[in-house]
Parts: sequence; C-alpha cells; structure tokens
Amino acid sequence: MTSSHTPPLPRLTLVLGGARSGKSRHAEGLVAQAPPPWLYIATAQAFDAEMEARIAEHRGRRDARWVTRDAPLALADAIRESPPGQPVLVDCLTLWLTNVMLAERDVAAECAALVATAREASGPLVLVSNEVGLGIVPENALARRFRDAAGRLHQDLASAAERVLFVVAGLPMTVK
Amino acid sequence: MTSSHTPPLPRLTLVLGGARSGKSRHAEGLVAQAPPPWLYIATAQAFDAEMEARIAEHRGRRDARWVTRDAPLALADAIRESPPGQPVLVDCLTLWLTNVMLAERDVAAECAALVATAREASGPLVLVSNEVGLGIVPENALARRFRDAAGRLHQDLASAAERVLFVVAGLPMTVK
Amino acid sequence: MTSSHTPPLPRLTLVLGGARSGKSRHAEGLVAQAPPPWLYIATAQAFDAEMEARIAEHRGRRDARWVTRDAPLALADAIRESPPGQPVLVDCLTLWLTNVMLAERDVAAECAALVATAREASGPLVLVSNEVGLGIVPENALARRFRDAAGRLHQDLASAAERVLFVVAGLPMTVK
Repeated sequence: MTSSHTPPLPRLTLVLGGARSGKSRHAEGLVAQAPPPWLYIATAQAFDAEMEARIAEHRGRRDARWVTRDAPLALADAIRESPPGQPVLVDCLTLWLTNVMLAERDVAAECAALVATAREASGPLVLVSNEVGLGIVPENALARRFRDAAGRLHQDLASAAERVLFVVAGLPMTVK
Repeated sequence: MTSSHTPPLPRLTLVLGGARSGKSRHAEGLVAQAPPPWLYIATAQAFDAEMEARIAEHRGRRDARWVTRDAPLALADAIRESPPGQPVLVDCLTLWLTNVMLAERDVAAECAALVATAREASGPLVLVSNEVGLGIVPENALARRFRDAAGRLHQDLASAAERVLFVVAGLPMTVK
Repeated sequence: MTSSHTPPLPRLTLVLGGARSGKSRHAEGLVAQAPPPWLYIATAQAFDAEMEARIAEHRGRRDARWVTRDAPLALADAIRESPPGQPVLVDCLTLWLTNVMLAERDVAAECAALVATAREASGPLVLVSNEVGLGIVPENALARRFRDAAGRLHQDLASAAERVLFVVAGLPMTVK
C-alpha cells in the first residue's frame, strides 16, 4: 500500500499534537501505509462516560485489519511482545503516563524502561502523545509533575525516533 | 497591492495561533494584499472591560478601508451575505464558538453549517482562530467540551482550506 | 567550535518552547558553538524546593566555561553590562516577567526597556522563553495578564531577532 509519494514508515515515529488535533487519525494513516494486520496498543482506561465515548469513537474508526491490545500500564511489555515486523501504533503515551502516576508507580523508572524498549524495537512503531506544555503553568502540583514527566519522555523518545511530527488541525508539521 | 514576493491570497486560509501570538495582525496583513475594501467580521462580544479594551485595540488598528460587521452568532450568514469577490476576515472562531456554547445552541450543527459555508465560499476568506489544545487537560468539563469542539472545527476547516498557518510570536509557520 | 554544518550564531536569537521542551538545553548548545567563555544570565528565583531543584539541575549541566550572573529583575542592565562580543544566554524571559509582575513593576515599561536593549545588543544574544498561550483561557485574571504580556514581548523580540526557533520535544523548528 505504500505509494511512491509517501516516505516509507521508519522504525520509530513520534506523533505529537494537542487535544483533538487529529494526531491519532494521522498516526493511523501512517501505520496503514504498511501491509496489515496492524497492532493497536490502547492505553486508555474508561473511568467515566466521557472517556468511554472517546474510546468507542476511536475504536469505531478502526476496521478488522486492526488487532487491539489494551495496555494501560504494561506498555513496554506489550511493545516487546508484538509480532516481529508487524506495524504497531501506541495511542497514547500521555494516558499511559496518567495511569502510571495514578497507580503510584515509579514514573522515572517506568519512562526509562519505555524509552529503552522504543530504542530497541525493530518497528515500525508509531507512538502518539499529547503535547501539554504550551499553556500557563498549572496551579495544581500534580499537573506540573505530569507536565514535566511528559516533556522529558517526549524529549527522550524524539531523540530515539527517526521521525517526529507535530500535528496541527489534522496536518503534520515535520519536526524531525 | 500584491507584491511579486507574496503568494496570491487563496480562496480559504485558516490562521491558527495562541493568545497574543499576533495571529489577527498577521491575518489583517494577508487580507490587505488584495485591493480594498475589506470586510471584517467580528465575533467578539464585550461582556466586561477587559474584552472592551481588546475590541477597541483591534478596531483602532484598522483604517477606513475596512468595513466591520458584527456576527457574534450568525457567522455563517455573515460570510454568505458578504459581497462576492470582497476579501473577508473573520476574527475569531473561538470567540464565536464561545458565544454558541453560552447561547446553548447545538454546537455540532452550528459548526457543521459553518464548515459547509466555508467550503462553498468563493473567497478570499481568511479565518482566525485560537489554538487551545496544547496545555494540560482542563479540570472544568465545559472547558474540555470547548477544547474538543474547537479542535474538531479546526480539523474540518483545515481540511477545506488551501492554506493553513500556525502563528508563533507574530511569525507564520506554514502547515499547509 | 563552529562547524561547517552549523549556521553562525546571529546577533539575536529567540528560543521559544513549552515547559520541559528542551529549549534551555537547545539554547545552551547554540551558544556553545561560539568560543567560550559564555555568560549565562539566570532570571530564576528559588521561592520553594521545586524551583531550587530545577535551578540546581540547570546549573549542574553547565561546566566552568559558563559564567553565571543572576538577574531576576535587572535583566536589561545585565545584558547591557555584558562584556562586548561575549555570547550571552538569558534563561528565561517568562520567569523574569513573573518576577516583574510579583514586584509590581510597570510591566509595559519594563518590557519596552528589555526590547530596546535586545534591539541594540551587539550579540550574540540568545533569549529563552516559555510559550504559554496555547492552552485554554486561564480562569485567573493575573494569569491572563501574564499570558498577554508574554505574548506581546515574544512578538516584539521575534520582530527584532535574526532567528526564532520553536522547540518541540528537544528539536528546533525554524520560525524565522
């Protein structure tokens, strides 16, 4: 399915963007350039009706060529255990980080393990994450810790990635 | 007034940017490449002194070649009723969306109507909007709904637009 | 130390980015292209343990070739008094603006003086600042004032700068 106009899917791609920026949809399109089946690793947990609706909307967009695996916490394991050569989409890192913090895991250790896994993955692996650091400093200390951890994680993954995109209004800007 | 160095104003341009990013001023400069008069469709409503000062500042920047029309809610009508061929600037979509939500209108229907109007407009039409999705998830449910609606609207309009700009510190980055 | 692959450090560079975007580290790398010693003008004031840790982390990254000067408020003076020809890094403008507002100084006058100083500086001068305007409108009026002042300051400095970068996940996007 790769057309001559599309660069081949690299080993590791990081897709950043704001809320409702179309980053998930863009990432799905990237993965779908490779032959199916595609593995979708979902990190979302439905704590309330709002999240349930959002998960259902994302799920409804994906057809039978997608295999979905839930990994709200054991994300590095899920990536490592994916079939060799099969394209993998992780959606999204900020929800995973939220789960790690809510479960009171060691955030630095979990992030380091995830970065190591991404560095070693054979790919193609596409990671989707929310950019959350471009607003006013949050008054809430937990939100500040989250923002700092997300920012560090993005820097480390961007350094390891062959391609980094920043999605604005559904359109990708190439950062790397 | 179009110089040989400036690309001609396309049918539909979406200018996104943060608060005080200079997006309005940049959009005014784009429209002013075409011969006057220019139609300025203002969506702002002055609820307090802060908004009044901001509206006055924007208004003071525009000279007599601008015709101003207020459209806090009936934005699609104002675009459709603009004189054919006359350059139109809408400033801004996020204020309009705020007005729609405060008036308890059907947000999805209003946004769909606006997108349809923008798709059909003969142009040149320049739409200015605030990117609001790049901070921490707001604690306020209404703010989350607003952020989601704005993000969807931006995606739909960006898809219809010939040119999409992301303004940072007064300078345009070309997204499309 | 300037390699043939790196553009020479211009007179004035503005490095914008979100929280934990890697903007400080990127700016340090830019300055380190020029021969040492380098002047680091720090605007941070440690009001609490969180800020102390962040300052210590930044300081630990810089070796003996950096000379550090603290200028939480008298930033324009510190820039003007820097040795001619010595590369200067200011980190960061948003913390300085916070200090100016907390000290109840005249924000517009202080910003105008800083912009004038940056315009006249012989350089190379690299200014780091947080982009804070891309989230939801803050409910807090002081935060809105801060956001407006930062946005205006960024526009004025970007207009005076030879190079403007927007750092995402540690990677620079060239705005100008």
